[in-house]
Amino acid sequence: MNELQDVIGAIRPLRQEAKDAASVHLDNLTKPPGSLGKLEDMARQLAGITGEVMPDMSRKAIVVMAADHGVCEEGVSAFPQEVTRQMVMNFLQGGAAVNVLARHAGAEVVCVDIGVNADLEHPDLLSRKVRKGTANMAREAAMTREEALQAIRVGIEVADGLAGRGVRVLATGEMGIGNTTASSALLSVLGGIAVEEAVGRGTGIDDARWLHKQEVVRRAIEVNKPDADDALDVLAKVGGLEIAGLTGVILGAAKNACPVVIDGFISSAAALVASRLAPESQPYMIASHQSHEQGHGRMLEAVGLGPMLHMDMRLGEGTGAALCFTLMDAAGKIMREMASFESAGVSRG
Amino acid sequence: MNELQDVIGAIRPLRQEAKDAASVHLDNLTKPPGSLGKLEDMARQLAGITGEVMPDMSRKAIVVMAADHGVCEEGVSAFPQEVTRQMVMNFLQGGAAVNVLARHAGAEVVCVDIGVNADLEHPDLLSRKVRKGTANMAREAAMTREEALQAIRVGIEVADGLAGRGVRVLATGEMGIGNTTASSALLSVLGGIAVEEAVGRGTGIDDARWLHKQEVVRRAIEVNKPDADDALDVLAKVGGLEIAGLTGVILGAAKNACPVVIDGFISSAAALVASRLAPESQPYMIASHQSHEQGHGRMLEAVGLGPMLHMDMRLGEGTGAALCFTLMDAAGKIMREMASFESAGVSRG
Repeated sequence: MNELQDVIGAIRPLRQEAKDAASVHLDNLTKPPGSLGKLEDMARQLAGITGEVMPDMSRKAIVVMAADHGVCEEGVSAFPQEVTRQMVMNFLQGGAAVNVLARHAGAEVVCVDIGVNADLEHPDLLSRKVRKGTANMAREAAMTREEALQAIRVGIEVADGLAGRGVRVLATGEMGIGNTTASSALLSVLGGIAVEEAVGRGTGIDDARWLHKQEVVRRAIEVNKPDADDALDVLAKVGGLEIAGLTGVILGAAKNACPVVIDGFISSAAALVASRLAPESQPYMIASHQSHEQGHGRMLEAVGLGPMLHMDMRLGEGTGAALCFTLMDAAGKIMREMASFESAGVSRG
Repeated sequence: MNELQDVIGAIRPLRQEAKDAASVHLDNLTKPPGSLGKLEDMARQLAGITGEVMPDMSRKAIVVMAADHGVCEEGVSAFPQEVTRQMVMNFLQGGAAVNVLARHAGAEVVCVDIGVNADLEHPDLLSRKVRKGTANMAREAAMTREEALQAIRVGIEVADGLAGRGVRVLATGEMGIGNTTASSALLSVLGGIAVEEAVGRGTGIDDARWLHKQEVVRRAIEVNKPDADDALDVLAKVGGLEIAGLTGVILGAAKNACPVVIDGFISSAAALVASRLAPESQPYMIASHQSHEQGHGRMLEAVGLGPMLHMDMRLGEGTGAALCFTLMDAAGKIMREMASFESAGVSRG
């Protein structure tokens, strides 16, 4: 019934036997043990997640959750709120960066309206609107606890649906003008980090607006008094609908024994919430990149993830996760195609 | 006639007009300006190198230079010297990590015997042996100045040959048991860095052998007294034949207006030598990854390069460069396939 506790309870630990078998295989290949670094870590992790030493990772999807943020009325972003809606249409027409990079990686983009402040229709859009954008968290809770739960359920159902039609790897992506503000608030509260360290420049704001954004986050925390020990409370009060949806996607991926590639700052906020709601979900996550957004390094540390790409990207959408897919495929081919010391007649050290 | 000074003199500055045109194009795409970070930097750089806003980068080659090191008799490596020869045969049979990752990236592997201490024959091997391995640099100069020049010329000719048959992107790779020792010596002398910071653990040596390796590098520098202001002198005395060959590949790539992707620690030592011989060659270089090898970060800094991948890899061969090719292709597709603000009807910030 996708009640949250049932979903969390259905997440299994990684399969140690498959991880060990992957290690044995890797150490027989013609290279010093461990010398392919995070490619080898990823190969082991994928074995542990799927229970197969050489799992089929060919079908991949990036779930892009889109929603609006009431806090935009405080003037925290360099872009107007209508851009959320416009970019959703761009995703659906295939012209955004995430579409280009997903095609490059052989992945599909699944676009979900979980809370855009507009009426959207398109045959490829999953319309799962919980409400038309959050309330302004600088004045009141962004949403109710029940709405947050409902958005998480949407994410779980999307993950279930994709796993059900044979997708084996998921990734998180998002669109929502104002969502670095919500993510910074989540990082500050859940990570116990000072607001001035947690708040960055998002899509590219100047010094004055950056200081203002910090002030808005401080006010949101003061007004709502989120309970740091209750991740759902924090998510509801200072989070966002797309962040809640992605939390659900991550939990749903783990429940379905699918690896889930985490994109940038906002996706990592969802990963942080998921890891607090269900620490068992963390081993299913793969960090793709460290973004240019100031708090992202601290956010990933708080989840316990180490990123592979350092591209100074700050776009979101799932663009970093898409690039990471090509590294994941590389890890798979290393497992399948490399010669062993024996087969190649190479001496061991 | 590929005299070194003529080659260096033929390297042109990047084309500012094409870089500017690439910038204008990038800033019209549906994303905040600069938000794709190093993907955008790379797109601009490729435009500057080729003079085309959307250059054809489809044909790519990784040049793997192989050679032996006399310093191996000091016991600096975890692997026996015969592994150089064995791995060359593995490259030629397509079973090594670099073969797998090159296929993944749609690139060819070009294997050059520039100084392996064995007689090798294979129809796909470029036999360009300058000598059968270097002398033991802990006792005497690794090679003569003329031999170093000859090895550089080999690299230039290989680059010329590839450019001549339509390859548009080059990358560096290498194989040579003992070559992190030579690269550490180059870094220490050319970078002015203490030996204990420049020397790492190569293929994976223990503490005792690591301290011994530092001592060997110290002795090599003391015995040979390389002149830090004369990169060719340093290369000849404490370098390696494959490092000299890759220096030539880099200079040859620049001369032919081809981007050249720099792999790990040893390739970066060649990049450091190339940048000292010809500072004009530096803008043609693309750093692929930061390896696990201790001195690599300092080496890249000394060349003025920022790596994209942080994979904790320490294999060499060109494996990191191969992964970078998939990022380069992604940058090319961003330029070609993304929608503009106008075409997608998205508001600007």
